Amino acid sequence: MSGKIYDRDLGKTPANHVPLSPLSFLERAAEIFPERTAVVHGALRRSYLALHQRARRLASALESRGVGEGDTVAVMLANTPPMIECHYGVPMCGAVLNALNTRLDAATVAFILDHGEASVLITDREFAPVMKEALALAKVRPLVIDFDDLEFPQSGERLGTLDYEALLAEGSEDYMRRFPRDEWDAIALNYTSGTTSNPKGVVYHHRGAHLLATDNVLTCSLPNGAVYLWTLPMFHCNGWCFPWTISAVAGTHVCLRQVRAQTIHDLIHEHGVTHLCGAPIVMSSIMSLPDAGKKPYPNVINFMTAGAPPPEAVLAGMREQGFNVTHLYGLTEVYGPAVVNVWKSEWDDLPLNEYAALKARQGVRYTMLEGLDVMDPDTMLPVARDGKTMGEVMLRGNVVMKGYLKNKAATEQAFAGGWFHSGDLGVIYPDGYIQLKDRSKDIIISGGENISSIEVEDALYKHPAVANAAVVAKPDDKWGETPCAFVELKPGAQASAEELIEWCGQHLARYKLPRHIVFSDLPRTSTGKIQKFKLRERAKG
Amino acid sequence: MSGKIYDRDLGKTPANHVPLSPLSFLERAAEIFPERTAVVHGALRRSYLALHQRARRLASALESRGVGEGDTVAVMLANTPPMIECHYGVPMCGAVLNALNTRLDAATVAFILDHGEASVLITDREFAPVMKEALALAKVRPLVIDFDDLEFPQSGERLGTLDYEALLAEGSEDYMRRFPRDEWDAIALNYTSGTTSNPKGVVYHHRGAHLLATDNVLTCSLPNGAVYLWTLPMFHCNGWCFPWTISAVAGTHVCLRQVRAQTIHDLIHEHGVTHLCGAPIVMSSIMSLPDAGKKPYPNVINFMTAGAPPPEAVLAGMREQGFNVTHLYGLTEVYGPAVVNVWKSEWDDLPLNEYAALKARQGVRYTMLEGLDVMDPDTMLPVARDGKTMGEVMLRGNVVMKGYLKNKAATEQAFAGGWFHSGDLGVIYPDGYIQLKDRSKDIIISGGENISSIEVEDALYKHPAVANAAVVAKPDDKWGETPCAFVELKPGAQASAEELIEWCGQHLARYKLPRHIVFSDLPRTSTGKIQKFKLRERAKG
Repeated sequence: MSGKIYDRDLGKTPANHVPLSPLSFLERAAEIFPERTAVVHGALRRSYLALHQRARRLASALESRGVGEGDTVAVMLANTPPMIECHYGVPMCGAVLNALNTRLDAATVAFILDHGEASVLITDREFAPVMKEALALAKVRPLVIDFDDLEFPQSGERLGTLDYEALLAEGSEDYMRRFPRDEWDAIALNYTSGTTSNPKGVVYHHRGAHLLATDNVLTCSLPNGAVYLWTLPMFHCNGWCFPWTISAVAGTHVCLRQVRAQTIHDLIHEHGVTHLCGAPIVMSSIMSLPDAGKKPYPNVINFMTAGAPPPEAVLAGMREQGFNVTHLYGLTEVYGPAVVNVWKSEWDDLPLNEYAALKARQGVRYTMLEGLDVMDPDTMLPVARDGKTMGEVMLRGNVVMKGYLKNKAATEQAFAGGWFHSGDLGVIYPDGYIQLKDRSKDIIISGGENISSIEVEDALYKHPAVANAAVVAKPDDKWGETPCAFVELKPGAQASAEELIEWCGQHLARYKLPRHIVFSDLPRTSTGKIQKFKLRERAKG
Repeated sequence: MSGKIYDRDLGKTPANHVPLSPLSFLERAAEIFPERTAVVHGALRRSYLALHQRARRLASALESRGVGEGDTVAVMLANTPPMIECHYGVPMCGAVLNALNTRLDAATVAFILDHGEASVLITDREFAPVMKEALALAKVRPLVIDFDDLEFPQSGERLGTLDYEALLAEGSEDYMRRFPRDEWDAIALNYTSGTTSNPKGVVYHHRGAHLLATDNVLTCSLPNGAVYLWTLPMFHCNGWCFPWTISAVAGTHVCLRQVRAQTIHDLIHEHGVTHLCGAPIVMSSIMSLPDAGKKPYPNVINFMTAGAPPPEAVLAGMREQGFNVTHLYGLTEVYGPAVVNVWKSEWDDLPLNEYAALKARQGVRYTMLEGLDVMDPDTMLPVARDGKTMGEVMLRGNVVMKGYLKNKAATEQAFAGGWFHSGDLGVIYPDGYIQLKDRSKDIIISGGENISSIEVEDALYKHPAVANAAVVAKPDDKWGETPCAFVELKPGAQASAEELIEWCGQHLARYKLPRHIVFSDLPRTSTGKIQKFKLRERAKG
């Protein structure tokens, strides 16, 4: 028909094209709500103007010290103001934020610093013991900056020669950002524990962070001025992108160094918290608070949970205490949550067991996720939508990672057939809601943390008395799951459960240690493969 | 410092990159809420599944008839279900939707059909008289499809040989879209009346439509399942992108052929309307309803208005009737609204005159608009933020149009210096809120419609008795503004006001006709330029 009139003289210009970036959100919030409280931490209050100025100072100071486009800035920080500032200041100068899991052991941290080629490390004094060891083990020599939390003083030694506040003082609050040049540029690097003991570096870009941050507003119905309590670690998938989301609604961050029931309760009252996130363990913690410490909340409080389906008793307890619980699902590779159990009002009045059964489903895709399905990974065909046929959960769209850093093979494998292979096994119901049933990767989720069963097995195998070991998840009321090890000893060898756990403690972070050790023959297939599903059944018993 | 590790093997793949498009929103809504009511029109109800199927049929049928990538589909439709379907079905097959202003005269419509090179025209029988004439005048020979509104039967003759429902019957409801190939591809074409009598074709892309549609959710706090009443014409900047926004929240469209106070009132009650938009004239219409026809609304209803600042009396009346009024500002070139009077709670209790004065400001940028400022267009430097210094309102970012169709010169002029030049003059206050003070382009906004004063002047100049004519806006309680013409007759010539208005009626659409004609000498500068600001002062009196 007609010529291609829409291709003529209608290209991109500075007037009509800007790379998408969540950095824009903070700039806008600081413009429109300069005086609104952006950050609360202990007795500290900082306005949006101050937050933006401090982020600009950070970017400016980093740039002056030669840190720039494509450099990695690693941070070992609790949920404190610098952690929020780093989510803006680091990418503002073109660098990439690598937030370290504060629960990791020194060897793993050293591996990550080396693999990510960290140029800078910002570290809270609380984590000095692990970080000192990690720095000694690592090959890289980053510029080390200590954060001294004056609101909650820590006693760890200083590892560097520069303090975080001194760094900021070097920068200019009028710094003008020139990054990202392209919305596909990296903004963050997050290491996930995979099937092997070496974690993989998941790379996020500005485009995906912008879209997922926006989608959180839609999915969680965040109003302008929402008050968000930091019960979710910001090192987990960049706090599910909420450090950026909160700026999009000019909301208030309420920082929290440690998840403590009474503190959470008091902060909700003091600041009028409207939203918080966390693994089911956080809900259990909230519910553990004795009645003496409680008073009712004036409004419904929105709790977004992920990592494991919320148990029936937890749902009932949370509802009673005035929380509205939304179940999300995601992985590091999809910026945190990208699937939501969209709740339909017609389910509100179901009996609790049916209510909990529906709430346990992982749900449907986020608005910005283009595709979600359960497929046969060999044929890449969707399984029947019958709530029974198992397949692998696959995701596709703009909120899927750029890929794994320096790991082309793993990236290609993960993206085979045009979908991200989650490694989680599940079913899909006739109404399109998915539910996880098992994991194809050997991952145990304990207190919201991923633990590789293979990594724990590797530690056990190193013990001279161990012939074979298989580690599976054991359901746990408090932690969701804990690692349970089945061990065959070498003929004539001897070892106690306590001895093996202590042994593992020399190789693994504390949260990864097996809680139960069962000495037993391992069930095998005719070809000699260990039948883990049988062990999982036994662990449940 | 480190090598560019983030550039290696982390490119775009089908798993992690999809062109942004608002078409995704409908697909998701139909997946998750297939049974929810998407469209209400008279006694008609259509679910999200049905809406999606009909949009797919439309795309499929158009494609079968050879319509595809980069072709223009023009529509002359009221706010009816086909208009919503066209917002999805047309771009789904790669074509571009050109929604015609139903108030235009035949000559202008013919110009637009020719300029946009329309391949297809879908036209409501109500508009048959104008469209018959327009088709006779136009050089293009589009496929003409009549829409016969069975809910509200119209008597106009059929202009084509194919009915809209028959077209849909030709298509498949399983059609799979392959467009857009690139998010920069055009999705819509909207003609604006500019400074000259030939309208300019503003081209929107999928990316911008996606972002503005999402931003409406943030800006207007649209909850999932919002109920939206179509008081705003969908031919205006694609209904400010709300045809797409509503799918993002799986809300309900309540169609409306004509703005009538009693109908609006009744539909709000019947369907639990939560949001509606329109020019101040719509609010005046709502308030004109006699008390006998009214009953109070159970909830606050959100009314988004643009086109002119809401007058004090209107704000007071709307508040009394249970409406929360948000003042937006935008232009066709920025997808409708891109500026919002973000309301701060501390202003709630101000005396009405101060409240209205603050509400009259156009406000601050949308979340997805990257930049908004008031500048000296010669130096491109921002004016002082003192609420007094005049400059031109400039906008920049991803929700600015691709450009003007087949008009490179106008596009380049509009985007000079990396900003979109709005042509509106205004000031910016110390708090960053902008307020329009005048227009540098000679535009009169009457009942939400832009009227080019030059076009009206051109019509007057054609009259044999007219020596000189200058048309300016005259403030009007009902319409916001109306055209007021100042005329110098030729020596010895005679003409009455009625005669001149009738004369203009032969050249202009009815809504553009001058309401007042003043015979007078025109004030001029020393160089002979007509001093319109003086005439505006006189017109106010």
